[in-house]
Amino acid sequence: MANTDSVKVRVLSLNCWGIRYLSKQCPQRYAMIGDMLCKEEHDIVLLQEVWSEKDYLSLKKKLACSHPHSHYFKSGVIGSGLAIFSIHRIHDTFLFRYSLNGYPYMAHHGDWFGGKAVGMAVLNIGSLTANVYVTHLHAEYCRDKDSYLPHRVVQAWELQQFIRHTSAGADMVILGGDLNMHPEDLGNRLLRSYTGLQDAYLETAKFDGCEDGMTLIADNPFINKKELCPFEKGIRIDYILFKGSTKTDIYCDYMSTTKGSIPNHPFPYSDHEALTAGLRLETHTPTQSDRQPKIQDSAAGKLAALVDIVTEARTEVKVGLHCAEGMRYTATRTGVMGLALLVLELAIAAVPWLALGTEQPFPRTSFYLLAALCFAILLTTFLLYIFYTMELKALQGAEDQMRLAVGSLQEKLRGFPLAQPHNAPRRPPEGHEPSALAPEE
Amino acid sequence: MANTDSVKVRVLSLNCWGIRYLSKQCPQRYAMIGDMLCKEEHDIVLLQEVWSEKDYLSLKKKLACSHPHSHYFKSGVIGSGLAIFSIHRIHDTFLFRYSLNGYPYMAHHGDWFGGKAVGMAVLNIGSLTANVYVTHLHAEYCRDKDSYLPHRVVQAWELQQFIRHTSAGADMVILGGDLNMHPEDLGNRLLRSYTGLQDAYLETAKFDGCEDGMTLIADNPFINKKELCPFEKGIRIDYILFKGSTKTDIYCDYMSTTKGSIPNHPFPYSDHEALTAGLRLETHTPTQSDRQPKIQDSAAGKLAALVDIVTEARTEVKVGLHCAEGMRYTATRTGVMGLALLVLELAIAAVPWLALGTEQPFPRTSFYLLAALCFAILLTTFLLYIFYTMELKALQGAEDQMRLAVGSLQEKLRGFPLAQPHNAPRRPPEGHEPSALAPEE
Repeated sequence: MANTDSVKVRVLSLNCWGIRYLSKQCPQRYAMIGDMLCKEEHDIVLLQEVWSEKDYLSLKKKLACSHPHSHYFKSGVIGSGLAIFSIHRIHDTFLFRYSLNGYPYMAHHGDWFGGKAVGMAVLNIGSLTANVYVTHLHAEYCRDKDSYLPHRVVQAWELQQFIRHTSAGADMVILGGDLNMHPEDLGNRLLRSYTGLQDAYLETAKFDGCEDGMTLIADNPFINKKELCPFEKGIRIDYILFKGSTKTDIYCDYMSTTKGSIPNHPFPYSDHEALTAGLRLETHTPTQSDRQPKIQDSAAGKLAALVDIVTEARTEVKVGLHCAEGMRYTATRTGVMGLALLVLELAIAAVPWLALGTEQPFPRTSFYLLAALCFAILLTTFLLYIFYTMELKALQGAEDQMRLAVGSLQEKLRGFPLAQPHNAPRRPPEGHEPSALAPEE
Repeated sequence: MANTDSVKVRVLSLNCWGIRYLSKQCPQRYAMIGDMLCKEEHDIVLLQEVWSEKDYLSLKKKLACSHPHSHYFKSGVIGSGLAIFSIHRIHDTFLFRYSLNGYPYMAHHGDWFGGKAVGMAVLNIGSLTANVYVTHLHAEYCRDKDSYLPHRVVQAWELQQFIRHTSAGADMVILGGDLNMHPEDLGNRLLRSYTGLQDAYLETAKFDGCEDGMTLIADNPFINKKELCPFEKGIRIDYILFKGSTKTDIYCDYMSTTKGSIPNHPFPYSDHEALTAGLRLETHTPTQSDRQPKIQDSAAGKLAALVDIVTEARTEVKVGLHCAEGMRYTATRTGVMGLALLVLELAIAAVPWLALGTEQPFPRTSFYLLAALCFAILLTTFLLYIFYTMELKALQGAEDQMRLAVGSLQEKLRGFPLAQPHNAPRRPPEGHEPSALAPEE
């Protein structure tokens, strides 16, 4: 392996908390962010929660000199909130919308309207191709009873799929964003183990920032300390992840985070801390062993761990499936009750109509009110039924893919004699599905 | 270049027209399809419109011996209808849902409920990696006044993006499906030029099938001849496309389609004809020139043609944007009128309430009926507003990506001195966006 070239790339990731008129000091903070980006001249800037396109456009104007290339990813009702600024030319972009992203009727959480997604930009840094990803996963509103966990796990699953399948031609992969997951959360382990992405905070040679690399901290004046509980000091949910390729080795020379306040400013850039990573790429001529896919290099232990993680994710998705089935059943039952009520009402109404000339006046007001109520119930439950069916399909789809993935991983595991003391054949006979290790329920 | 290996792959693609209880002779046709697949033993079978999972499962059972590996892609309310059967092990699957897919209120067209998508399966054929894609784009109901054209163009755009970005590591790419586009339609040109995929019908050494490779023909008993008008004999909208890689050359040795009837059977497999392609892969040691991305090999003319196609697609997307804006405006205006009506009604109702003791009885029935009507208008227009906003975001997103793509292609074009007689510099000075050729409006 002969080092021929070294390229340095400075990356920033920041959740801007940019809800116009609702986020505190929003215009002032955008002005501060713009000034900082203009001055710091990071190679790549990955922003989340830039909810308003106007704010993106004003940033773009401000950064026209320092970062001439940028892209804003549009999705959902409000937008994905994702933006990339780069000093290197962006050649190509692609957006993957997650199949699951909360519920439209949870309007106060708002995630559904954001159309959460992962945005990709392909850029050339010198002679190297960099695939840069920015994403923002569904928020965690209550860690103890997190009803969005299956959705977030499916998002992490789709994120790893997207990165894995789209990065084959890249010399360097960088992912930045607010994953809304703690470092050892299931989705995070799934993402890192499957893609081989490395966590800049864990890999950095030098670190300057909050304790434990936290990015949502109690010391930030925009943070409600009660909401952090039981994590008094804060949590780490924003990340910069990276990996090289067979042609490049990548190192994190330094990493830093803001610390809840900015010198000479009355408040910080956002309620999240900004992350900066200094990456260094060393290109080398690939040797034959490098050309093998990474997964082949992994020991049986790593593969077995991956099987465990995917199995855990499958269990979580099944919990989500169970919930969604329950919700759809409730919607169906309520709809049927609404229909029964309507039929009953019509039957009762038919009595005075049939018995013409009775003296009792027909209670029209109650009749119409009740009918309107029935129609409202029917319409709402119908829409909910459609929505839950789509949720079920997406969850089932993810579960199917995970089952297939576990099967495929187990197939690979059979190739390791140590992992299988019974010396199982490497390939099962044609026409026979693996049975003993098969992941079927 | 030394040929070292030759692999033969037989691929079938069929739109099964599998709407339970609605499609004619559905169970009988599935039985016929199952028998045929079992007997023919194609390497890869790509099915569309398998709308019911039960039908997929019964096919899976029937094909357990001939095609032990399969995957059914779930999406939308009904499902994507896409299924893959393979004699080679499927290692990985991935589903990309198109961001646009018709309108939910066009329930008689049904496309929205199907959740149209492109499914990908990664399989190993010998030592080669094959990325196999199956898709079904939005139907064309009226060619002269095709209101779904922008949606289909965006689907074709996303399809080419998905294939291009996910196939970098593949030795062979195969796409089969019902594209609902004629051979020279915009979306088809976009797909073929951008990905470099070749049309099996155009590349085949031998062909046996319908005239001009048609796949929806007047001779098929399930086809309503009037709907084909003005294409009396039929149209070609189903395709098998393929490409190799730097390591493999791929050839189509033969291709065939069914011809509207099946010997010894009273009716054909479907209203679409089945396509079969015999592909042959020759692996070779990549030379240095092979390693360059395909796009670099292309002459300036090809690049310029691609710029034209993407520009044409952008125009089509802009037409869609204009329509969606109009529809959202109409929904907003209707909603405002509903609100005004409600306010007016409340004002009128307030008169007898305020003037207590008037002899005129309060017209409760009309009041409640009108109020219910106002609420229905408000709810419907609100839902439509949300939907059209999402449509707008998706269209704007595609348009942004296309603009960026045109810019990037033009940048590459500048590298060809012949294409630019003024000898424009290959790279514009840092900090300056290209202006003369810039695709901004």
